[in-house]
Amino acid sequence: MKQLAVIKIGGNIIDDPAKLPGFLKDFAAIEGYKILVHGGGKVATEIGKQLNIEPSYVNGRRITDAQTLQLVTMVYGGLINKNIVASLQSIGCNAIGLTGADGNIMPANKRPVKDVDYGFVGDVESSKVNATVIQHLLEAGLTPVLAPLTHDGNGSMLNTNADTIAQEVAKGMGKLMQVKLLYCFEKKGVLLDPEDDNSAIRNIDLARFETLKQTGAVSGGMIPKLENAFAAIGAGVHTVTIGHADELQGLINGTAGTTIS
Amino acid sequence: MKQLAVIKIGGNIIDDPAKLPGFLKDFAAIEGYKILVHGGGKVATEIGKQLNIEPSYVNGRRITDAQTLQLVTMVYGGLINKNIVASLQSIGCNAIGLTGADGNIMPANKRPVKDVDYGFVGDVESSKVNATVIQHLLEAGLTPVLAPLTHDGNGSMLNTNADTIAQEVAKGMGKLMQVKLLYCFEKKGVLLDPEDDNSAIRNIDLARFETLKQTGAVSGGMIPKLENAFAAIGAGVHTVTIGHADELQGLINGTAGTTIS
Repeated sequence: MKQLAVIKIGGNIIDDPAKLPGFLKDFAAIEGYKILVHGGGKVATEIGKQLNIEPSYVNGRRITDAQTLQLVTMVYGGLINKNIVASLQSIGCNAIGLTGADGNIMPANKRPVKDVDYGFVGDVESSKVNATVIQHLLEAGLTPVLAPLTHDGNGSMLNTNADTIAQEVAKGMGKLMQVKLLYCFEKKGVLLDPEDDNSAIRNIDLARFETLKQTGAVSGGMIPKLENAFAAIGAGVHTVTIGHADELQGLINGTAGTTIS
Repeated sequence: MKQLAVIKIGGNIIDDPAKLPGFLKDFAAIEGYKILVHGGGKVATEIGKQLNIEPSYVNGRRITDAQTLQLVTMVYGGLINKNIVASLQSIGCNAIGLTGADGNIMPANKRPVKDVDYGFVGDVESSKVNATVIQHLLEAGLTPVLAPLTHDGNGSMLNTNADTIAQEVAKGMGKLMQVKLLYCFEKKGVLLDPEDDNSAIRNIDLARFETLKQTGAVSGGMIPKLENAFAAIGAGVHTVTIGHADELQGLINGTAGTTIS
């Protein structure tokens, strides 16, 4: 079975002109099939301000009204995505920038209105990821760079969380390939001691996860992150690794970050 | 030899919510391989104004400074391109939105500074169009939708005229396929009587072109348009047709518009 690395980066790298080129160089150096998933970043908020589009959040989630949808379609799908693609091209990586609408690779459902109307937000199901189109692109020597955007199949783009995109693509591709899913964030992994960045736990299984929750080593936002990771493993992803973008090569070969399996 | 239609639309269709859906429906209905090339449109100027980016022109050409490059990368590569892709997806056309950077399909050279510094403007050569990547996409059942953007191979996106993109892609693909190049504009073709929209000349060859220039039936902006069309024919494009977007089916089957061959 062919191997595929799905790597997600967020605003902390995208927004940092000192970090992004080094990360992209490391990404370009990864051998074999790979997909980059990028998030948004401050630039969307900044451009939104200039356009008098005030960001609106409920429970930490951005509400995507029609204006905000236009903003993220421009900034995520155009500005950020194409600049990453051009950078990767300049270092020999044949990148192709895509949203979920392109090649219909990720159709989504507009999130139903319950307590909160999230607006133009798309929920993706891995079963609807068009894995064969993505496989075609990979086999043609192309490296997909995915923006956090999907579409509803009725003509509208939708805003979708980049972590979700990475997870659902990894699950969808897990049917065809052995998939490593990597989340790059600002820590070196799951830390035994939150104050010590060098205390990252190399491997976590479900039993260890339960223990670490009880001791408090794993808490807050890390709990849903790991729960999603275990869900991905359960849905056919081979490994999920969480760690620092500076250590991408180590995350790939298992010598850095925290790996869930 | 397989057939391919390369169809270019400009701002007069993109900006018109009453026209665009109908055009896209006609486009989606075209059988066989096809590529859509879109221009910019007023929305870029409007968003630019809100962002305090004043458009600057020399000899009718937009100067692309760094800010304007960001603007067009967002608006052409993101907003316009992805909305067209989502619309096409909703009517059963498996569109994939691309710039010249994506899959390195159109590397370009930043235009050298002579009398005018055009800024971040890319000149494309058809010999550098990566026709095999485009062929791969077509054979995978995908319909490329091309934004008027290229890249310099050194990490920067570049702004490129959509007519040029259409022409160079058509020429580049002419090596592999029998290419029809269609320019949709606001007239029904080359008019014998400029006042009579139903006086379109069905076919023009070089001899007729010379005669029409002498009689004055062909003048102004139509002259370079037709010169480019003859150049495309000379470079391996099978036919070039100029006509009204409302008559797309007729332009494809040769019953509307003016065809140069």
